Amino acid sequence: MVTGPPLRQMFRGKRILITGGLGFIGSNLARWLAATEAEITLVDSLVAEYGGNLFNLSGLEDRVRINISDVRDEHSLAFLVRGQDYLFNLAGQTSHLDSMEDPYTDLEINCRAQLSILEACRKFNPTMRVVFASTRQMYGRPDYLPVDEEHLLRPVDVNGINKMAGEWYHILYHRVHGLPTCALRLTNTYGPRMRVKDARQTFLGVWIRCLATGQPFEVWEGAQRRDFNYVDDVVDALLMAILDDKAIGRVFNLGGEEVVTLLDLAQMMAAANGGGSFTHVPFPAERKRIDIGDYFADFSLIEKELGWRPRVPLQEGLARTVDFYHKHLAHYL
Amino acid sequence: MVTGPPLRQMFRGKRILITGGLGFIGSNLARWLAATEAEITLVDSLVAEYGGNLFNLSGLEDRVRINISDVRDEHSLAFLVRGQDYLFNLAGQTSHLDSMEDPYTDLEINCRAQLSILEACRKFNPTMRVVFASTRQMYGRPDYLPVDEEHLLRPVDVNGINKMAGEWYHILYHRVHGLPTCALRLTNTYGPRMRVKDARQTFLGVWIRCLATGQPFEVWEGAQRRDFNYVDDVVDALLMAILDDKAIGRVFNLGGEEVVTLLDLAQMMAAANGGGSFTHVPFPAERKRIDIGDYFADFSLIEKELGWRPRVPLQEGLARTVDFYHKHLAHYL
Repeated sequence: MVTGPPLRQMFRGKRILITGGLGFIGSNLARWLAATEAEITLVDSLVAEYGGNLFNLSGLEDRVRINISDVRDEHSLAFLVRGQDYLFNLAGQTSHLDSMEDPYTDLEINCRAQLSILEACRKFNPTMRVVFASTRQMYGRPDYLPVDEEHLLRPVDVNGINKMAGEWYHILYHRVHGLPTCALRLTNTYGPRMRVKDARQTFLGVWIRCLATGQPFEVWEGAQRRDFNYVDDVVDALLMAILDDKAIGRVFNLGGEEVVTLLDLAQMMAAANGGGSFTHVPFPAERKRIDIGDYFADFSLIEKELGWRPRVPLQEGLARTVDFYHKHLAHYL
Repeated sequence: MVTGPPLRQMFRGKRILITGGLGFIGSNLARWLAATEAEITLVDSLVAEYGGNLFNLSGLEDRVRINISDVRDEHSLAFLVRGQDYLFNLAGQTSHLDSMEDPYTDLEINCRAQLSILEACRKFNPTMRVVFASTRQMYGRPDYLPVDEEHLLRPVDVNGINKMAGEWYHILYHRVHGLPTCALRLTNTYGPRMRVKDARQTFLGVWIRCLATGQPFEVWEGAQRRDFNYVDDVVDALLMAILDDKAIGRVFNLGGEEVVTLLDLAQMMAAANGGGSFTHVPFPAERKRIDIGDYFADFSLIEKELGWRPRVPLQEGLARTVDFYHKHLAHYL
């Protein structure tokens, strides 16, 4: 984690806006920033199916400004971006299955709202630094591993297509209008404050909930290899990307150092929990069609350019996560 | 051109829907199909800024059904797709500059309407063959030449981003829902019935209008190399792609055999016109930002898979085009 005093001082007196600020990554970022002398505004819709949760900011209600609004509401965003120094643009629809069942809502959030945020930046605050939370989902089924930023984008679901467009709007508004934007393509992120009610944010949420309630969870297929980032490492990357001029106009992969199969991961999680059971089942048909097989990222570009690399080992991150939900599960059900 | 009787017979009794059917490519396609025994329905919004023009179908008003509606109108499309055998999905917003000034309209047409057309196909006609008119614009500034289908997509304007999403929706609906779709990435297309009022469809339109009215036209920069397809060759490709099962689920580049600089092209056009003058000027600033430099396509994939290659030499195609506008210019102003 970036916890050193020098980094904290960089945010003294800065005005920071976080879309999706009550969500998983946004709230972890906000909690870190709350210890700096920044002025923090969180924008969140608190749509029940998404990641926003007021408990994620519990104890900090007086320290941050919480503005309940939807990124699809272009008027509120056009006001809120004004005077800000930094925008962490994290709000998004994340569910792959929902995007297939209701492609329009995914389009409104992941495409249209991104355009309107960027239009607001262009009109009212063209010098504000912007980091966009993008996703590895847009690579689709990899041609080679690890996947670097030069890999073709061949998304396998509507969500991946719309996130791809949303990411490119950000880069385009840099190239054409000069906005200082960049994008991070996140891999599977886990940690405290993620949604565990269902798999809308990540399948890991369901696993954690089952472990914390003593239920068995299901591992689909299981041989797929994946990489994972503990949320603090993602927060690090967001902070480094928003501060470093070398990031402007660029797209970087995040990625995990340990590549494990989902079966290995299930065993690590059960161990982190001090016990737990899971069943190993074939892929449900509607999932199989959009599964991408093995995926892990080459994150050497962001390491070289910005000096980021993940620091929290998987077993330690899993233990912290399990511990969090043993304590706070009731707030996430 | 595919004019042989065997191909014409393939369409006997078939029901064919063409979005953008009164536009440049759609109307040329419809005119060819009108000589077959197909039942043809053209959908067009006739929005003044786009390519639709009733004159494009003059003489065939009794042979084809013209349905004035906008692809953004999901209700009309949900009705019109029913019972069709083939959908040529050609409607689109094509202006790069308009897409930068009004990104939302471009999004509604090139993304949202594509989703709703595909949803209509999925619900009401999942076996209808679909060909989508995509664009080389999504490649952006090439890394290498000629550009093949494995080249990274890095669009340089909102239109390119949205067309990229629209194309991927088509491929996705094949992969996930089994719709028999495919996409052709068109390069610069020219010929009779293109919009010449302004450069919204192609800069060639403006050149042609100036030649036909005896005005000098402007060549910007001029050293950029490009490839061109005469519209009949594009019609060929659309017909071959919709009939051939090998096209299903795939994306193919079209491209021209002759690669010429814009200055060379200007000279060829003036020659085709039997004279004409142009001035050579630097890039206007707002164009420079979204220009892609040299571009020409590798079209060997579609040649190998479907047997397509362009047949109309550039000089001949230009002569036919100039001739058409000398006769019919009044209908295009």
